[in-house]
Amino acid sequence: MSAEIEEILKRYQSYPNVVGIIILDPFAIPIKTTMDYTLTVHYAAVVNTLAAKAAKMVSSLDANNELMNIRLRTKQHEVIIVPSENYIIVVVQKPGD
Amino acid sequence: MSAEIEEILKRYQSYPNVVGIIILDPFAIPIKTTMDYTLTVHYAAVVNTLAAKAAKMVSSLDANNELMNIRLRTKQHEVIIVPSENYIIVVVQKPGD
Repeated sequence: MSAEIEEILKRYQSYPNVVGIIILDPFAIPIKTTMDYTLTVHYAAVVNTLAAKAAKMVSSLDANNELMNIRLRTKQHEVIIVPSENYIIVVVQKPGD
Repeated sequence: MSAEIEEILKRYQSYPNVVGIIILDPFAIPIKTTMDYTLTVHYAAVVNTLAAKAAKMVSSLDANNELMNIRLRTKQHEVIIVPSENYIIVVVQKPGD
């Protein structure tokens, strides 16, 4: 399981302009992070409700559909939330040129 | 105001693979749509809570930051939600190749 987490971390770290990666368990408990503690806990709390809400939205519009990821573009960065079976992965990027 | 809405519609219709556009007022009431009524009303309801939640998440993480758009990638399509001062714009695209 730890090898799988390292694998996920490595994969997303190869993305351009990544400033932080947080891996949460399905209950949104941080199990790995490259960000500071306060920010990690804050992300975990808000990402959890947002991902649940978005997944519910998608399946309520079409029961055969499924949420794959959420991208939040903000003035300062882009946050990618990838819910998977075992983890919720949060990747924070600086907007690219 | 109607000209502004037509302008928004035209701009997003030029995007590739667009299957539907919905323009909502800030209270998430549909004011223009290219999708059928049932789907429009359903999108309006779920988009509203999701956009509000995401905007709150962004400002709670950093008061100087601001949400620009949300992209939901699903198995079947991509939904782009653009909250602006006067409207919430929802664009549904088929994933590109």
